[in-house]
Amino acid sequence: MTDLTLLDITDTAASLAAGDFSAEALLDAYLSRIGLHEGDLNCFITLLAEPAREQARAADQRRARGVGRLSALDGVPIALKDNIDLAGVPTTNGMARLRTPARDSEVARRLRVAGAVLIGKLNMHEGALGATTDNPHHGRTQNPWRRGYTPGGSSGGSAAAVAARFCAGALGTDTMGSVRLPAAYCGLAGLKPTYGLISTRGVVPLSYGLDHVGPLCRSHRDLGVLLAVLAGHDPDCAESIQGRNALDGEAVDLRGLRFAVPLTAAATPCTDGIWEDFEVHVDALRHHGAVVVDAPLPSPDPTGTRLAGLLISEAEAGHALAEHFLANREDFSDGFAKMLNYGRTAPAHRLVAAQRQLAAVKVQMHKLFDRAELLLLPTTSQAAFPFEQAPPPGQADFTQWANHAGCPALSLPCGLSPDGLPLGLQLMARPLADGRLLAMAEAIAPLLPALALPVPGN
Amino acid sequence: MTDLTLLDITDTAASLAAGDFSAEALLDAYLSRIGLHEGDLNCFITLLAEPAREQARAADQRRARGVGRLSALDGVPIALKDNIDLAGVPTTNGMARLRTPARDSEVARRLRVAGAVLIGKLNMHEGALGATTDNPHHGRTQNPWRRGYTPGGSSGGSAAAVAARFCAGALGTDTMGSVRLPAAYCGLAGLKPTYGLISTRGVVPLSYGLDHVGPLCRSHRDLGVLLAVLAGHDPDCAESIQGRNALDGEAVDLRGLRFAVPLTAAATPCTDGIWEDFEVHVDALRHHGAVVVDAPLPSPDPTGTRLAGLLISEAEAGHALAEHFLANREDFSDGFAKMLNYGRTAPAHRLVAAQRQLAAVKVQMHKLFDRAELLLLPTTSQAAFPFEQAPPPGQADFTQWANHAGCPALSLPCGLSPDGLPLGLQLMARPLADGRLLAMAEAIAPLLPALALPVPGN
Repeated sequence: MTDLTLLDITDTAASLAAGDFSAEALLDAYLSRIGLHEGDLNCFITLLAEPAREQARAADQRRARGVGRLSALDGVPIALKDNIDLAGVPTTNGMARLRTPARDSEVARRLRVAGAVLIGKLNMHEGALGATTDNPHHGRTQNPWRRGYTPGGSSGGSAAAVAARFCAGALGTDTMGSVRLPAAYCGLAGLKPTYGLISTRGVVPLSYGLDHVGPLCRSHRDLGVLLAVLAGHDPDCAESIQGRNALDGEAVDLRGLRFAVPLTAAATPCTDGIWEDFEVHVDALRHHGAVVVDAPLPSPDPTGTRLAGLLISEAEAGHALAEHFLANREDFSDGFAKMLNYGRTAPAHRLVAAQRQLAAVKVQMHKLFDRAELLLLPTTSQAAFPFEQAPPPGQADFTQWANHAGCPALSLPCGLSPDGLPLGLQLMARPLADGRLLAMAEAIAPLLPALALPVPGN
Repeated sequence: MTDLTLLDITDTAASLAAGDFSAEALLDAYLSRIGLHEGDLNCFITLLAEPAREQARAADQRRARGVGRLSALDGVPIALKDNIDLAGVPTTNGMARLRTPARDSEVARRLRVAGAVLIGKLNMHEGALGATTDNPHHGRTQNPWRRGYTPGGSSGGSAAAVAARFCAGALGTDTMGSVRLPAAYCGLAGLKPTYGLISTRGVVPLSYGLDHVGPLCRSHRDLGVLLAVLAGHDPDCAESIQGRNALDGEAVDLRGLRFAVPLTAAATPCTDGIWEDFEVHVDALRHHGAVVVDAPLPSPDPTGTRLAGLLISEAEAGHALAEHFLANREDFSDGFAKMLNYGRTAPAHRLVAAQRQLAAVKVQMHKLFDRAELLLLPTTSQAAFPFEQAPPPGQADFTQWANHAGCPALSLPCGLSPDGLPLGLQLMARPLADGRLLAMAEAIAPLLPALALPVPGN
């Protein structure tokens, strides 16, 4: 029999519906891969093999009893970044310890109602405040494409686990790029939806105005499957919105599609080959009838806005984690503690200035969508790099804009760097056009080179 | 001929349309009252008699040329609080000086396009950060109902000018109650619309998340006339929303209307007679078939949330005014300077804590609208008081909730205190139900005692 973990969620759902295999067999296939490679990759902070088995059996029993499938995710193994609450399971937030919640986060609740098999909690950059997933408490998560290389972050465990086929899909969180960035580094599709469309209740806050939960998957079509389960208004979440019709999106014809490249290569220096590869994709779109329009971000300042987002995150996470910090200083690395202290004690006017800086960017970003339906950018300015190398400061330079603007954005795998590591192509659309963005991805993905699967442990 | 200033905007518009009198005659009637009573009341910081005359003549010329009326406000004298930019006219923000803007604020631009006659800029509490309009730079604005009494604030000049019939309507701003509170103290109708529905671009910021522009008028029906001109998405304002359908609202039948009283008298102490008067109105609604439902705010903390709003205002206004402050310290009173310094230099985690406290209130408030379509409260816990009396600390205790929640709220005049001063009844509805809120006011206003007009200079 084929390795069941080779199927994406969409095909898995079809096979489970057809009874080609059981949810428990599927889980066993994933657990078997975990058994083989988790020692090398270190994706999980908490593996939940036994609860997952109960959930898989429950899915199989539903099928045996003739109950209709609860959703496309019924019986499908999904894992969660470890800043997302799952009732009764520790949430570390990538720190030594943080809490064991009594209640599910809203996204975990939705996954449960959908019948998903919740297979574990995934490693991440400490506090989600960084992008290497070189975690001082839980160790490094290796990039399945190349040992010794970062999977990116902060949702590095989520990306590595999906790329290594330890789960069919995973949830990450994205405050300035933490879903799209590791998706790009690991050759995956990753989505940050419209701000507020997926509830962040029960997710450890980094920045209330920039945080998003989003899925990482092996195919762009899987993103829509997860989004349909996760999106919805949550009256208990102050940031949650009524996103009626956000998921609508009819098929996109590339002919006549107006797209723009809002930043130049000069705004953010890229390593060799990145911008050249990106331009190949721009040309491919034009070749298929899409129209490039001129819609640049006026005087973009990627460093300034990134630092503004960082200060807001340090201050807001510093507030959110203050109680635990005062009682359990040892659960924080010195570097993370220093960042939180810096943000907590900064004078309020600096925080206000940072918030206003990003509000101005939001205004600029929204205006671009009057001229172009799609904004196109590389996802990152480089491919994955060795842990030994200092992280490039501008890792989030291309992704942050969608957080500031609250607009949906996704990364598609789009080929390999000269060095043989995956690259990502980033698509952004106007707020609440999430369904339309996915439809654009559906039209564009066939133009991009298909990636082989990584060989974990390489 | 009748005193033309006795007509509300709605009747004035009908008369101008019918040609009963000219816009210039109307302006003269208002200027004549200003000439008689402004010396006593001190409503204006800048009177714009000559530009207003040009605008009135332009309105009359449009009529003479057979051009259709630009809007219901065409030829109608309207005044603006002095924190709202009018091109070429000083904006003091109630300070000694602040700026002379080259551009209109978005609301001034909309009024101009509508043909309104912009008659002047009105006194206010210094920096909008207080509620007496006892202004150290521009003097006290007297309450037209009783000399020596506050008109309330911070939009005190706006309320006094409308009550004294110096203009047909005025714009104020409302961060925790600064439109509704002076409306109540001066026997007027005042509206704070849904957050973001009216652009705040070109209005001096106090708090970006709490600030609203809103109209003060002599009748509730005039509120809708002004709202229709002022509301609309402004792509240059980060806080502006797409409020499609927010102004819709069919006639309301009180029978079966579900309303709630979210706070008890115990939550905010009221002076004698206030809560008793309020209960008379509650009974009147019930008598006409409306249904009281139980929808209390869980553990309300009016003082705590008011202090949170105050800290946010001090920090954000402190940031917004920083440049002027550093160069022109003398334009700020010591008391105002101290508040801004306090907010500017507070540690960021306190600002975050205040923002989160209000975010939690927003969640609670929105849930009330699942159980009741209308929330009813007194507008203030006392009537207007003498300038010599220390301002009651809880003046905004009943109004602030609508700012935290972003929901539309209005104050209707509802009778007199035992001491003969006006009282206000406050109505709140769910966000984006502005039109429905006005329709509820239309149904409720006839149940309330009509007020005579004040005699300025009393």
